[in-house]
Amino acid sequence: PQNGQRRNGPLLDHVEGQRFLEEAFQIILEEALRQGVDPKEKVCEWKDPEELRTLLDLQLRDGGESHDQLLQRVRDVVKYSVKTCHPLFFNQLFAGVDYHALAGRFLTETLNTSLYTYEVAPVFVLMEEVVLSQLRSLVGWEEGDGIFCPGGSVSNMYAMNVARYRAFPQVKLQGLWAVPRLAVFTSQEGHYSIYKAASFEGIGLENVFLVNVDERGRMIPEDLDLKIELAKMQGAVPFLVSATSGTTIQGSFDPLDRIADICEKHGLWMHVDAAWGGSVLLSQRHRHLMKGIERVDSVAWNPHKMLLTGLQCSVLLLKDTTNLLKQCHCANAGYLFQQDKFYDVSLDTGDKSVQCGRRVDCLKLWLMWKAVGTQGLEERVDKAFTNTRYLVEEMKKREGFRLVNEPQFVNVCFWFIPPSLRVMEDSEDYRERLAKVAPTIKERMMRKGSMMVGYQPQKGRVNFFRMVVLSPQIRQEEMDFFLDEIESLGRDM
Amino acid sequence: PQNGQRRNGPLLDHVEGQRFLEEAFQIILEEALRQGVDPKEKVCEWKDPEELRTLLDLQLRDGGESHDQLLQRVRDVVKYSVKTCHPLFFNQLFAGVDYHALAGRFLTETLNTSLYTYEVAPVFVLMEEVVLSQLRSLVGWEEGDGIFCPGGSVSNMYAMNVARYRAFPQVKLQGLWAVPRLAVFTSQEGHYSIYKAASFEGIGLENVFLVNVDERGRMIPEDLDLKIELAKMQGAVPFLVSATSGTTIQGSFDPLDRIADICEKHGLWMHVDAAWGGSVLLSQRHRHLMKGIERVDSVAWNPHKMLLTGLQCSVLLLKDTTNLLKQCHCANAGYLFQQDKFYDVSLDTGDKSVQCGRRVDCLKLWLMWKAVGTQGLEERVDKAFTNTRYLVEEMKKREGFRLVNEPQFVNVCFWFIPPSLRVMEDSEDYRERLAKVAPTIKERMMRKGSMMVGYQPQKGRVNFFRMVVLSPQIRQEEMDFFLDEIESLGRDM
Ligand SMILES: Cc1ncc(COP(=O)(O)O)c(C=O)c1O
Ligand SMILES: Cc1ncc(COP(=O)(O)O)c(C=O)c1O
Repeated sequence: PQNGQRRNGPLLDHVEGQRFLEEAFQIILEEALRQGVDPKEKVCEWKDPEELRTLLDLQLRDGGESHDQLLQRVRDVVKYSVKTCHPLFFNQLFAGVDYHALAGRFLTETLNTSLYTYEVAPVFVLMEEVVLSQLRSLVGWEEGDGIFCPGGSVSNMYAMNVARYRAFPQVKLQGLWAVPRLAVFTSQEGHYSIYKAASFEGIGLENVFLVNVDERGRMIPEDLDLKIELAKMQGAVPFLVSATSGTTIQGSFDPLDRIADICEKHGLWMHVDAAWGGSVLLSQRHRHLMKGIERVDSVAWNPHKMLLTGLQCSVLLLKDTTNLLKQCHCANAGYLFQQDKFYDVSLDTGDKSVQCGRRVDCLKLWLMWKAVGTQGLEERVDKAFTNTRYLVEEMKKREGFRLVNEPQFVNVCFWFIPPSLRVMEDSEDYRERLAKVAPTIKERMMRKGSMMVGYQPQKGRVNFFRMVVLSPQIRQEEMDFFLDEIESLGRDM
Repeated sequence: PQNGQRRNGPLLDHVEGQRFLEEAFQIILEEALRQGVDPKEKVCEWKDPEELRTLLDLQLRDGGESHDQLLQRVRDVVKYSVKTCHPLFFNQLFAGVDYHALAGRFLTETLNTSLYTYEVAPVFVLMEEVVLSQLRSLVGWEEGDGIFCPGGSVSNMYAMNVARYRAFPQVKLQGLWAVPRLAVFTSQEGHYSIYKAASFEGIGLENVFLVNVDERGRMIPEDLDLKIELAKMQGAVPFLVSATSGTTIQGSFDPLDRIADICEKHGLWMHVDAAWGGSVLLSQRHRHLMKGIERVDSVAWNPHKMLLTGLQCSVLLLKDTTNLLKQCHCANAGYLFQQDKFYDVSLDTGDKSVQCGRRVDCLKLWLMWKAVGTQGLEERVDKAFTNTRYLVEEMKKREGFRLVNEPQFVNVCFWFIPPSLRVMEDSEDYRERLAKVAPTIKERMMRKGSMMVGYQPQKGRVNFFRMVVLSPQIRQEEMDFFLDEIESLGRDM
């Protein structure tokens, strides 16, 4: 067995290697995909960390392992991993599997290139351009700029940096000491990446002003106006408002039009964090949720969430046509971005990024889009809304479920009230007991492996479930099972 | 054909989808891999951008395409992409293909999860822990911290932020206005990501002090000391020195031990950007290049470069054992990092990152490591050095090649002096003509598709080639061909 090291070793035999890849592919197809999407199989074979450590033998050693041992490792990784493509996986803002996107991902991995320059990524430089322009046209922009980023958090960070650069270009050279204290604004239910961005970029958490939300989690424009005045009174200089289209927990859409009015009035960069909700732009029926989007300066949008491209696929789109993104981020490295090349060097787009090597994230989205067309994507989005509607109506018919709010999007936030609590009045004791219901049911479903859904507290609200119904692979059966299973796991509480 | 949209469409048929994936896999195997690594095939089928746009039909439309059309698109993407796995691809700091790593990447893509929490990525949370600890032990640390980042640039950014946090924790809350002007230090040949980091984090390019290098591109410790004093005299507060192990162009290694002395003297965080050179730590024979590494505070290291894991695979390793990384970056989002879970929530490592969703980048490295063992990795590193030595000696035998410097690492920087220039004395005219040689030869090799190698000017030096000999798949034949081909492409100049 130790001679695996020799055989697969430093000289890297192609024939041997390709054989391994083929066999691994068959395991992936059979055990990760065919079994992974089968509703009769578990979502997850739960093991406590200590046990899993032992089962996996993760340690790395001097010698290599044999072909067969390695294939067994592939099997083990599959076995103990969560099947996020399983129809009963509702735990995150991604789920399901799209096979065209997956093929695009395999191809991306195999071609293994980096988006610095046209010479090293000719197909993908052009492809990224087309995909970005198509996404921009859904926003309502005929021109503009954009880039794929490693996730929505980074897209939001980029927006903050570019907005800062437009307002105070001297920060790039001189740092924040050259300008007064800055202030950014987002709602109380905005994503935490806005905080992380502010602290990473040297602005500080205290300079993130939180705007109040209405009872359904939407930013209150009047309060934004007040908070801007408040910041100014405190001597800070506002430069960015980040509205949210599709908040993480409740799936709320901030009123963009009215927020845009206020941004215009104060001359602020308006960014929209549509990492989660952006995909509604594909739906004629639902895009009204983002009315006013064409007025904003930048949009972050993650196709890896609702559109099933797989992680990571996130874009920052900009209305700007003055090359602000590149000016803000460029370092003009001579070893990549030579100006004496034999082709149009404006295609060497790598300097728009603060990364150097940058993964190709456009191919999977492009191939999937080619496969189903814009209409196909629209139908998927509409299907998710329809599914959500079904789930909500079913919940209303059942005694134990109480909605936190009527959903605007595909996040269904609810409490399960177990039988013993149904007879109680609201009280401190009641809330304490209710807070323990979701964690207990969660533990039970994990140990059983029957499904996965998340929970969290939020402001005054004790732990409630957030069920996300986004995959177009979900059928009524799965939703019915979900409700039955929650009832059954919480029956004795 | 338009009914492809129906069939592959919103309801996402699993059987159909899996069939597509299987057929796409066969194309990938045959056309991207078998042909891609074949030295008789082209490295790249070069097309000018206008022509490539037409050939690819990138536009996205309302309707979907048929199964067969989509497979043809997979073929086209392969055909016009650069084969970075080809034995004559020497253009970047990555090359070659490792099939175990590639299998790990396919598996990563299929399992499609995100490294926030143990519950959603149980295998990978534990695996990341083991891989990081193994890499740390190569640095010489028995404990510490670390994280996988989307590339070396981001790893460097993280180091800068954590160093700043240790020195001035108040920046996280209050921003840079709460502290005096800060200063960071790197060498003139340090990577541009240090600039990008300084500007992104609000520190400003002017506060990056560039330390002089010796004739072989290594930071001069005495000059670092001077630059630190200079910064202080200017009223700035130094907090970070970023030394480089393996500079991007020349592959130089800064003298870590002597730099560490200076950092200790001034109480500064010492970071090492070993994105490129870090892999020498695997080699008993060559790790002396990083002597002193165990004394530093943080190390950025990209296995996706020399170790062939494929993009992206980059780690930041920290000596710290006080949870600085998490304290610096955390936002404690309640919807992911609930404290009332049923398992040890210290395994929910996502909050160490400034990302939210974070790709699994450890599996490919882990599986490859399991396959060849630490010894196998060591042999690969040693092989790259041996190959470099061979290439350099061959160059010395040939009239037209002039080394910029004797290589320390596997970067071979050289001018090709075409026949007409060999008789000339050094002069302005000579240098102008020499500067045009590399771009012209580069254009010719690209149009021919015979091989790929990069060039750049550097300080007083006009355009020279940087040949990188890192893949263990390279044989003497390829190096001989490389030299012959340069001569042949530059014969008439
Ligand atoms: C010395 C050095 N540091 C950092 C980087 C950046 O790494 P990445 O491309 O992964 O961002 C590079 C890239 O070539 C490099 O050579
Ligand atoms: C509203 C919102 N914005 C941003 C993000 C961050 O996206 P990513 O996980 O890609 O960083 C999320 C993630 O869930 C989100 O819900």
